[in-house]
Amino acid sequence: MLPGVGVFGTGSTARMLVPLLRGEGFEVRALWGRSEEEARSLAQELGIPFHTSQSDDVLLHPDVDLVCIYISPPLTRQIAVKALGIGKNVVCEKAATAVDAFKMVTAARYYPQLLSIVGNALRFLPAFIAMRQLLAEGYVGELQVCDARVYGPSLLDQSYGWTCEELMGGGGLHTVGSTLVDLLSHLMGARAIRVHGLLRTFVRQNGAIRGIRRVTSDDFCFFQMLMGGSGPGTGSGVCCTVTLNFNMPGAFVHEVMVVGSAGRLIARGTELYGQRNGGNGEELLLGDSEGTGQEVKDVPLPHLRGLGSMVKALKDAFQAQEERRSWARGPVAMASTFEDGLYVQTVVEAVKRSSRSGEWESVEVMTQEPDPNQNLCEALQRNKN
Amino acid sequence: MLPGVGVFGTGSTARMLVPLLRGEGFEVRALWGRSEEEARSLAQELGIPFHTSQSDDVLLHPDVDLVCIYISPPLTRQIAVKALGIGKNVVCEKAATAVDAFKMVTAARYYPQLLSIVGNALRFLPAFIAMRQLLAEGYVGELQVCDARVYGPSLLDQSYGWTCEELMGGGGLHTVGSTLVDLLSHLMGARAIRVHGLLRTFVRQNGAIRGIRRVTSDDFCFFQMLMGGSGPGTGSGVCCTVTLNFNMPGAFVHEVMVVGSAGRLIARGTELYGQRNGGNGEELLLGDSEGTGQEVKDVPLPHLRGLGSMVKALKDAFQAQEERRSWARGPVAMASTFEDGLYVQTVVEAVKRSSRSGEWESVEVMTQEPDPNQNLCEALQRNKN
Repeated sequence: MLPGVGVFGTGSTARMLVPLLRGEGFEVRALWGRSEEEARSLAQELGIPFHTSQSDDVLLHPDVDLVCIYISPPLTRQIAVKALGIGKNVVCEKAATAVDAFKMVTAARYYPQLLSIVGNALRFLPAFIAMRQLLAEGYVGELQVCDARVYGPSLLDQSYGWTCEELMGGGGLHTVGSTLVDLLSHLMGARAIRVHGLLRTFVRQNGAIRGIRRVTSDDFCFFQMLMGGSGPGTGSGVCCTVTLNFNMPGAFVHEVMVVGSAGRLIARGTELYGQRNGGNGEELLLGDSEGTGQEVKDVPLPHLRGLGSMVKALKDAFQAQEERRSWARGPVAMASTFEDGLYVQTVVEAVKRSSRSGEWESVEVMTQEPDPNQNLCEALQRNKN
Repeated sequence: MLPGVGVFGTGSTARMLVPLLRGEGFEVRALWGRSEEEARSLAQELGIPFHTSQSDDVLLHPDVDLVCIYISPPLTRQIAVKALGIGKNVVCEKAATAVDAFKMVTAARYYPQLLSIVGNALRFLPAFIAMRQLLAEGYVGELQVCDARVYGPSLLDQSYGWTCEELMGGGGLHTVGSTLVDLLSHLMGARAIRVHGLLRTFVRQNGAIRGIRRVTSDDFCFFQMLMGGSGPGTGSGVCCTVTLNFNMPGAFVHEVMVVGSAGRLIARGTELYGQRNGGNGEELLLGDSEGTGQEVKDVPLPHLRGLGSMVKALKDAFQAQEERRSWARGPVAMASTFEDGLYVQTVVEAVKRSSRSGEWESVEVMTQEPDPNQNLCEALQRNKN
């Protein structure tokens, strides 16, 4: 039985998500927007029966059993943690900081019977499912190098907001880079142990952002990850390079290439290509018959298509269940967990640190929450001596 | 009047060069090979009247006024400097070390009336000539980012040799990366001030290189360059990223992209594409009607095609002259000088240093020859105290 859905957010992803949910048979019962006006406007447009700007009104809504959170990163932790506390299943976007991500992990561990996934749609894209399968089967031999690139138009909103602010989770690294960090670790079964990166903000002001306001979030980012792993066949020792550039209007370029001792696999947009060493050039391994005509402004096609596949997987997870809140793990086993979300956030922060220090930074995933009073305690300690 | 040419080298570039020279009307008078056997074999194949393994026999040959040196990097300096000393014009490949490059600069400065160019053919490729022109005209607006990538099959020779040895100038960075370092500074009119890089040797042994022998030269390399410049319109502050991977059999991928505030230019292989922000997608700015069927093993097509253009420029420089050794500067004004060669070598060494240190390294071009006895002097100094 499919649960009723409450959607948080009125941005481009939330707008795409609603029809996808309905297409799979979910009923969207409630919509939350940052302002009453934003919520009303989108609820009317999409015909959603209930709208509000009070998060509790959605979280406590009796017909809502699955909560989808696609809002600005600084608000995500609070709503996700509360939703789990109320006993609702959660699909959400990434948090703003590693500390937030850690709090989400704590909540998810506390309610293991509830669904809690970070909705990185790329993991569900058929091209990447096939790539992961082929990597495991040894198509490329021993993995050596991964190279990912996303080029596209500006990620900034029409008006000043969190997308402009590095500290609020804006910027190419946090928004798009994080999905690649997650994807690459998923594809390889390995995690970054050291990273090096460079962030730049080339466009600090534009027609909408001017006066004393300046963009602080990155529109260009280049980083490398050295992967560690647990043995042969995994991505241990692999170098990953990621290039992001959002000063390139036009269609998104979204390319992920993995190179190994015996061949390579390349996902271009939503299609997968492969080439074995000694073979006759590149072969199309997985096409996309739906074509590329569906490009939506602000959202790369692989994310849009992946979102559709993720919603299908959610349907599969819920539909055979008798109880509205129960779900089967199988169909969503490949999803990014909150633990993965914490890892990704840790990498993102390490890349930012590296961009400031100019040095390789190690990736150390938090194992306990930092004491918010630590600075105070240290100050007291110093005074005592 | 076209000068007689002496060619040093029996490798793939020398083999391609001879027919190109003849195509423009040059007479190839003498060929030098590392061994008598190699020299004889190629001289017979190409119908060159004189061959030798003694460098002086070519340098002192009365019919040779232009010397083209395409040999292993550690031998280049010695022959280039000697050729200038004998009064011959020189086109050569890069040296093995910055110290060698510095000695070549000293010689070139001493004989300013002689032609002395480092034959980076990419500068002469029509796609890059057009790209440079369009950059100067402001096609991309204010330059922000350059991104270059070359992927291809192994650069190793069939048998063990300098290509396997990092210290002898082997490896992707030294062989191909250096041509991109040179090209990017030429395109932008700016030089790297700081670099960061990572080199890897994934294939340490193969069918031909085994036993106690191991490859030490890189087959994978990526590096970033932060460019300095002398004002607006130049590439000051631009980030360049270069990715080289020679574990990818099949056709070479050779792509150079420059992104600016108003658009971008992309050279794919020998063709140039452009896209202006707000325009209708990508446009072909310069095609290559000769197609890509001429791919030669071991040599990327842009290098081959550029070599042809460079030989044409050499003809233009020499042909209107009455004296066999005089030449006009105009047609070869865009060539890479020995000074450029020293800069490139300095960047290559800084990238290698960065790969070892893990840190950004600054690029400081040598201004005087390091004292070979410096270590000795320091040791004596220490003993005295």
